[in-house]
Formats: sequence, C-alpha cells, structure tokens
Amino acid sequence: MQTVKIAVIAGDGIGTEVIPEGIRALEAAGRQCHLEYEWTHFDWSCETYHKTGRMMPEDGLEQLKAFDAIYLGAVGFPGVPDHISLWGLLLPIRRAFDQYVNLRPVRLFDGVPCPLANKQPGDIDFYVVRENVEGEYSAMGGIQYEGTEREIVSQQSIFTRHGTDRILKYAFELAQSREKKHLSSATKSNGIYHSMPYWDKRVALMAQQYPEIKVDQYHIDILTANFVQMPEHFDVVVGSNLFGDILSDLGPACTGTIAIAPSANINPEKTFPSMFEPVHGSAPDIAGKNIANPLGTIWAGAMMMQHLGYPEIHDTLLNAMESVLRNKNSLTHDMGGTASTQELGAAIVEQI
Amino acid sequence: MQTVKIAVIAGDGIGTEVIPEGIRALEAAGRQCHLEYEWTHFDWSCETYHKTGRMMPEDGLEQLKAFDAIYLGAVGFPGVPDHISLWGLLLPIRRAFDQYVNLRPVRLFDGVPCPLANKQPGDIDFYVVRENVEGEYSAMGGIQYEGTEREIVSQQSIFTRHGTDRILKYAFELAQSREKKHLSSATKSNGIYHSMPYWDKRVALMAQQYPEIKVDQYHIDILTANFVQMPEHFDVVVGSNLFGDILSDLGPACTGTIAIAPSANINPEKTFPSMFEPVHGSAPDIAGKNIANPLGTIWAGAMMMQHLGYPEIHDTLLNAMESVLRNKNSLTHDMGGTASTQELGAAIVEQI
Ligand SMILES: CC(C)[C@H](C(=O)O)[C@@H](O)C(=O)O
Ligand SMILES: CC(C)[C@H](C(=O)O)[C@@H](O)C(=O)O
Repeated sequence: MQTVKIAVIAGDGIGTEVIPEGIRALEAAGRQCHLEYEWTHFDWSCETYHKTGRMMPEDGLEQLKAFDAIYLGAVGFPGVPDHISLWGLLLPIRRAFDQYVNLRPVRLFDGVPCPLANKQPGDIDFYVVRENVEGEYSAMGGIQYEGTEREIVSQQSIFTRHGTDRILKYAFELAQSREKKHLSSATKSNGIYHSMPYWDKRVALMAQQYPEIKVDQYHIDILTANFVQMPEHFDVVVGSNLFGDILSDLGPACTGTIAIAPSANINPEKTFPSMFEPVHGSAPDIAGKNIANPLGTIWAGAMMMQHLGYPEIHDTLLNAMESVLRNKNSLTHDMGGTASTQELGAAIVEQI
Repeated sequence: MQTVKIAVIAGDGIGTEVIPEGIRALEAAGRQCHLEYEWTHFDWSCETYHKTGRMMPEDGLEQLKAFDAIYLGAVGFPGVPDHISLWGLLLPIRRAFDQYVNLRPVRLFDGVPCPLANKQPGDIDFYVVRENVEGEYSAMGGIQYEGTEREIVSQQSIFTRHGTDRILKYAFELAQSREKKHLSSATKSNGIYHSMPYWDKRVALMAQQYPEIKVDQYHIDILTANFVQMPEHFDVVVGSNLFGDILSDLGPACTGTIAIAPSANINPEKTFPSMFEPVHGSAPDIAGKNIANPLGTIWAGAMMMQHLGYPEIHDTLLNAMESVLRNKNSLTHDMGGTASTQELGAAIVEQI
C-alpha cells in the first residue's frame, strides 16, 4: 500500500466547502488503486490573519516542504485587502517552491451549458500554460510624492531569460506531445515596449528547435477576441503571469463555467511540492450556502494525482466527471441544476 | 457654410481601404447639414518608414496640430516591428495631444451574427473607457546582462494621480449621464502590487463624489469571463491602458465582430485635435482584397462629428448603419455577407 502525503489548505469562503468534496472523490478513486492518503490540514486563511496578523506562520513554507503536494481551496476574503491575502500565502508558495508552470486545461464538456453559440462538446479543448512566478506580478516599484497632487506610482514587471525560456520550453514540449502541435503565444509588443518584444524574441528562438510545431504570436487584445470567436483554433496557449491569468479565466468562461476549471501550479523538476487548486476564488457572495461547484477542486485533485504518478486515478476522476455532467439532476446552480455542493460531490463518488 | 478641417492618415493594410468609405459616408451625411470638409491626406505608414526610416516626419506632430481632428485607418505591417510602427506614430499622437480618453462603444446590432448564445439586439450596450496615455504602455525599463544567461528585462508601468483621476472623472461623468448609472472598474490588485491597489483607491475616493452611481470593482481575469457570461450587466467599464485595450477588443468580439467597433482618442479639453479610428488593425491577411469591413471607420467618423459638435451627423450615420446591418446582402464576409468594402460603403451612402 502506497501513501501520499498531502498538505490541505482549504482557505477562505467556498474554499472550505469544496475541499472536503475533493478529498472524498480522491479517497474513493484512491481506494480502487490501493492508494492511501495522509491529509494534513492547515487552517491558514483570512481568519488566521485577523487573529494573528499573518496569513500563515513565519515558518509556513518550511512546514509545507515535506509534503508530496499541496491541495488548496481558495484564498482571500472581504476585510483583508487582496494584495495582502495573496502576497501572504498563495504567491509566496508559488515562488518559494518554484512552481513556475501554471497549467490550466480548457474543455467543453457534454452537459455544461455553453455561453457561445453553436459549439459542441469536443470543439473546445486546449491548455493555457501560464508563467507563474515572475512577470507582471511583482512587488517592485513604489510611490513618489505620496499624498500630493503629483503622486506617481511606478510598477515594475520582471522578465528573466531563465524564467521565460523555461516556461516556453514547457509549453513547446506540451504542444509537441499533442496531436495538433500548435502553440499560440500571447504578448502585447506594440504597446509594452521592453518585456513583450523580449518574450516574442525568445519564442522565435525556441521555435527553431521545434520545427514540427506551428507557432502563432498574438497580441493579447485580439487573442481574447479570438477565444470567443474561434476557440476551436487553440491547442496550447502560452502567456506571461498576467496574460495567462486572464486567458485561463476567459477560456473556461467560454466553456460554460469557471467553476469546473482546475489550476496546477507545477514545479516540473519535483524539487519542491506542487500545488493544485480550482481556478475560482473564495466567492464571498455564495459562501456558506453549500451551492459552490466542487468540480474545479475535484479536477485539480485529478491533476495532482497525474503529477504524482497516478494517471489511473486522474482518468477515473475525469471519467466520473464526464458521466455526472451529463445528468442535469446532479449539477449545481451555476450549471443549471439544483444540487448542493455535497450532492454533486456524492454523485461523483457514486460514479467512481 | 461651415468647414471642418480633418487630417487623414489612412496608414497601412486595410486602413487604406476603409478610410475612403469613411470619407464618402461623412461627405454624404455632411451635405444634408450644409457642412463642408477639408481633407488633408498624410501618407504616413510603414511604407514611409521603409523609405525614410521614420513613420512620420520629424515635425509630424506640429503639422497635425492645426486640424480640427485626425481620422486614422490603421498602422502597422509585417516587416516593421510593431513596437516601432506604433511608437513612431499612433502612440506619440495620443500622447502629444493629450488624448487621454479612449472611448469605445460596445453594442449588439440587429443583423450582426452574435457569437454568444441567446443574446438579442439591445442586450449589449455599454462603453469601455480606457486610459490612453500612461499606465502599462511605457518605454521605461530596459535590459540587464544582455546576451547572457542572466538576462533580466525590467518593464515599468507609470500611473499618476493626475492621469488616473482625470480618466476616472470622465468615466464617472459618462456613467452619470446614462440611465443605469453603473460603473465597473478593472484592476488586478491581488497580483500587481503597487499600481492596481492605487487605482482602486482613487476609484473609491472618487465614488464618494458620485453617490448615485453604483460602482463595481473587478479583477481583470473574472471581468473578461463576465463579458462572455453576462455582457448585459455592464454600462460603463473603466480600465487602464492595457486593461481597457483588452476589454475593448473582447467586448466587440462578444457582439459579433470587432470590425464595426470604433475608437475615439479624445482630448476632452479640446486643447489639441482628437483622433478617431476603427478598433481593428491593418489586417495584413485580408489587405488588398477589398473585403474589409468599413463600418468601424464609419462609426469612428460618426464619433468624430459628435465630438466636433455635429450630433445630427453622428445620428444620421448611426441610423444608416442600423438600417444597412439589417440587410444581409450589403454586408461583408465577416458578418456573413458577400459585399465588398466599396459595396458596403455605397449601401451606407444610399441609406443616408
Ligand atoms: C496598435 C496598438 C498599439 C493599439 C493599442 O493597443 O493601443 C491598438 O490595439 C488599439 O487598441 O488601438
Ligand atoms: C488570487 C490571484 C492572485 C490568482 C492569480 O491571479 O494568480 C488567481 O486569480 C489565479 O488565477 O490563481
């Protein structure tokens, strides 16, 4: 019997409602493969911040290091400024553990009402590969002449060759492994003078090493338009921290609901634990109502198992999702159903 | 008889095909109001760059200053890096003439096939107000350790209180003038540490002066998702240079085609000429085929006349557009028709 050790941070809002369903589904799928889990729960959240002035203890990162992976619900809640809650927990984990790949599948499933006209299940099936530790998400910069009419805020983005090349390599390799072998890169080189032309240059250079891959370069503005107008065009889409973030909310929205979308924060070298979470946030507006959709968390759990070397568990979970999605009675309100979070979770377990 | 003096920069690619149709439509609508135009054509473009090494002459901005307005087609073409073509023409004009408002209407018209399911004409009708001269579009920054493994690119964004407050004021005033009185602001304060929380703070402060206006603050990622999932929710959406750019391509894409969308680069104080252009670019892939849609340019012309104090001409043009859009035979391929650029232009003139 093998055991995997998972650190669980349910976090805030609906994070605490969807994580238990993720665990239930993983347990059920694990049993079939004689896999055991050791779950260790960390109550780090905005509540913790209110009590202690910190999102996580000073040695928080140290505590996480020994785990095989981290399973996260959602972080952030009204009352704690976003840039505090995120820079105190989620972003430091991504950085300290060099989770430089953020991988987000976008897929149109049978049964999920699609906001785009005339799209069939299967039409939309691509990955967003997002750079996850540098770029526009940066605390470098500051304010000058504060409190006066002349206030100026400077905000820096940082792009390194190291950081750019490794995410591009991951994206090219992923494209290489897929049937279409098609990579689209998102920049804004006509407006953003230094960083974006640099990214384009690194793409062009790396493309030479992958002659089989068809490479498109898009400006982010028209790329978002194309997600709506021709989502079937895309296969692997790579972008900076900010652009990848935007595209990986927009993509899932085009397939019906961001509530089922997972997000894998991967350290491909496995030097450190990777982290798996749903794309959705803590959703204060529906927190406490037990109507949150647990599928993003369950799919994130599936990606976690894939990363840890258990592709059968990944597939079991995905198959269960596919079956359950076809049955409207099991779905939560965001997908046109009336089931509670727990009922949808139970339907998945039953299917497994 | 009054005369307005317009500087015309047709630019590159389909810019040179759509501008003549815009002029024809404006002439036709002007005749009805006994208005004359004096058109002065400037052949500034990527072709000029190839010949002279410059997108426009050194005294280009000086030459434009005396005009009532600037009517622009599109700038940029393969062979000239985007950041050169744009920073050599479009962006300097926006900046030198303090066109700090970029105003872009998003409207679903009868007759235009909508990529979103179940939307009716009238359901989508909002404005994107984009900050147009500072923010993320910045040439500040540079590269360190160039040519080595350790290359680092730093890219700065600059947000001033002056620049932030004046665009917010414009957006709040616009919201105030509309029925819904609803303003949505786009930021990314959980990831971008300095500039975005600053923008949020200025919004919160200004909101106190407009108690009648309902104000939402969105992160850009979920906001793009909401454009697809609930476009009818929006009334006035305000964002930084980059976020406004993204939203004003995505918005029109959600209403069927960015080819009909106009972009007004406005200096509200009228100290300098304002500039009017279609949202679409030079579209090298369809250039020379006479299939480009001229409606974005015609609508931009209408906004120009509104700005110059001729609302009747604006309305005449918009009414003509509405009628022509209902007749599939007059439409270009991007809207499901077979008409050429000139045929669609002629249909507008006839309607006027
Ligand atoms: C061409 C480019 C610099 C420009 C911009 O992003 O401002 C265009 O996309 C626009 O939206 O007007
Ligand atoms: C919470 C926020 C900082 C985060 C991000 O933008 O990275 C989230 O939107 C995500 O996409 O994981």
